Amino acid sequence: MHEQQRRRAGELLREKGIDAAFFASPASVTWLTGFAPPIQTGPHPFAAAPPLVWWDGERFTLIVVDGLAGAAAPFAAEPDGDVLTYQGYTIEAPIDSATHLRAVLRSLWERRSSSGLFRRIGLESWMIPAAVRDAMFGALFAAAHWTPIDGWLASLRAIKTEEELQKLRENFRLTDIAHAAARKAVHAGAREIDVWLAARQAVEAAAGCRVPMGNDCVVGYRTENIGGWPLDHALRPGDSIIVDLSTIRYGYWSDSCATYVADAPTPQQQAIHQVVGEALAFGASLLRPGAVAGEIDRRLRRFIADAGYPVYPHHSGHGVGVTGHEAPRIVPHSREILEPGMVVLLEPGVYFPGEIGVRLEDAFLITEEGAIQLTTHDKRL
Amino acid sequence: MHEQQRRRAGELLREKGIDAAFFASPASVTWLTGFAPPIQTGPHPFAAAPPLVWWDGERFTLIVVDGLAGAAAPFAAEPDGDVLTYQGYTIEAPIDSATHLRAVLRSLWERRSSSGLFRRIGLESWMIPAAVRDAMFGALFAAAHWTPIDGWLASLRAIKTEEELQKLRENFRLTDIAHAAARKAVHAGAREIDVWLAARQAVEAAAGCRVPMGNDCVVGYRTENIGGWPLDHALRPGDSIIVDLSTIRYGYWSDSCATYVADAPTPQQQAIHQVVGEALAFGASLLRPGAVAGEIDRRLRRFIADAGYPVYPHHSGHGVGVTGHEAPRIVPHSREILEPGMVVLLEPGVYFPGEIGVRLEDAFLITEEGAIQLTTHDKRL
Repeated sequence: MHEQQRRRAGELLREKGIDAAFFASPASVTWLTGFAPPIQTGPHPFAAAPPLVWWDGERFTLIVVDGLAGAAAPFAAEPDGDVLTYQGYTIEAPIDSATHLRAVLRSLWERRSSSGLFRRIGLESWMIPAAVRDAMFGALFAAAHWTPIDGWLASLRAIKTEEELQKLRENFRLTDIAHAAARKAVHAGAREIDVWLAARQAVEAAAGCRVPMGNDCVVGYRTENIGGWPLDHALRPGDSIIVDLSTIRYGYWSDSCATYVADAPTPQQQAIHQVVGEALAFGASLLRPGAVAGEIDRRLRRFIADAGYPVYPHHSGHGVGVTGHEAPRIVPHSREILEPGMVVLLEPGVYFPGEIGVRLEDAFLITEEGAIQLTTHDKRL
Repeated sequence: MHEQQRRRAGELLREKGIDAAFFASPASVTWLTGFAPPIQTGPHPFAAAPPLVWWDGERFTLIVVDGLAGAAAPFAAEPDGDVLTYQGYTIEAPIDSATHLRAVLRSLWERRSSSGLFRRIGLESWMIPAAVRDAMFGALFAAAHWTPIDGWLASLRAIKTEEELQKLRENFRLTDIAHAAARKAVHAGAREIDVWLAARQAVEAAAGCRVPMGNDCVVGYRTENIGGWPLDHALRPGDSIIVDLSTIRYGYWSDSCATYVADAPTPQQQAIHQVVGEALAFGASLLRPGAVAGEIDRRLRRFIADAGYPVYPHHSGHGVGVTGHEAPRIVPHSREILEPGMVVLLEPGVYFPGEIGVRLEDAFLITEEGAIQLTTHDKRL
């Protein structure tokens, strides 16, 4: 599982003169190992630190609190993978996860440092807790050996493996199901939260388990009608509602958007919806290897402006994977170049704050020939 | 909002010779400020670090990514509170939250250090990212000035303020609503996830917004039938199901449990359910100021053993607040003493792994006279 990711990461790190590395960002941990702990109620209650991955130049060691041992276990079966756990919950003594984690880190470090010295150690320094760094390397270890590697894996993550595409496809399947349910739930009198709950119900019933979900569920009359979590604003006849959904199963995000109208749409809504739909189709026609992200962005914005509408203030699109927004970013000035294996969203919109918001979004896999659409939800008004 | 908490924290820190302190645990941040960011899809996607609180000996400064500015704004109106934000999302440039946060931290530190030197700075060292500590204090700042203060606020948190009780009561109200819905959803053919979804639907429809939820929804025939998130295990006639629920609104957790049976319970289930109910009532009768947590635990376990059943392997209960499990822990050997203002759960259970699990749980506020029950869900079989 995720061997290709680890191989690519190792190559990049060695190329840049890094002997060993310590990862703590949830994105890096999931991408390197496939391990995706539950997130919906916050960090694990008895963990001293987030899940960590230590790379000693050869093997990858996933370090988690014992309450996550079951979820982490598959990684121990990997040829280059180890799992270390430390005690969290116990009724026999006060909970002291930090002491247990410190002991694991010390022994991990002592074992390795006796077999060779590391000259340059990469650290995801914005995610590694200060005490983890202190515990691992000791107070006497010179800071000169540390190199911040925050964000280094981001560009590697842009090209998806077959295994990742399977996980993404399963999420897009769930999101399609969610949209079908949301569409049915839109009618005058329903609230944003009711539409949202219909989508969530459909996803978790289909998945047979809890699934974290984003993103937006906002009626047109909200002043901030571009995005936001659902509240108890009720739909009146003729109100539009943006439903922008992600599911996060196996640690991978989907993303797609549709806009619905309670009862009958007005001619203005129909006109806007048509332009946004045409913009999305136009954007999709530009997707191919070699295309420059900033150029796609520029042409999509001009398409909206040429149609006589205000240009949306957000990105035209973005990549997706172990995070909801990642490379390539389809934004002004971006010089990122599309490559086969990238998965990108396009999401043009038209907004009149406090009145109408319309956004449509599909996902695409960049291929040698162009792009394949991964989302199949009904985006009609 | 939460002035009492900040006053108590300041007193404790000064008493222990701490001049200034830096907090990063979500529990500390919410408890000190009332700020409770959304958690259900993980950390904020464009934040360089978790929300931080800096105390300079007088004022508390909440530091968040600009995407959380709205949620943080009320804290700026506090007489002793400030809010600093840093740029996260932008389409005008590559996202570089870390650079923006570093600048905020440097200016915060330079401003204060010119007005006086701190001899001892407290750090929640297991939660503060290494790069945040480096950015704030600079590489030349001697580690001798740092004192780890992880967990220091935990004992202060055990006694709830009136304001916290209001937040907890709202959560217990939501959890009661959830149980009523779960009870109705239990029937042969329903799956764990269906029962869970009924509870969630009821909570979010009543709250009019998204509400993070824990804990367990497990049928008796699961080998690990004590706890776990709902899966697609279907209830057969006569199967028991433990439904242990928390809602987390305003950053505060509720917690309560009931056990239901699909269709008609067996005599064995009835007998176990009765004993667990009696144990819970017995435990409740022991709650009063001055009672020792370990003694309540011991007597509850003996109650179950005396009834001829295996004694549960988990705690007998625990406090609740900005985390789901906090002081006082009602576990063996605990010398914690109950005091008015504490909110505790009691949750005895009887488990035959892979066959039947029964747990019942109520919440209690310790008062001068004894205890008031905060949960009102129907716990009958």
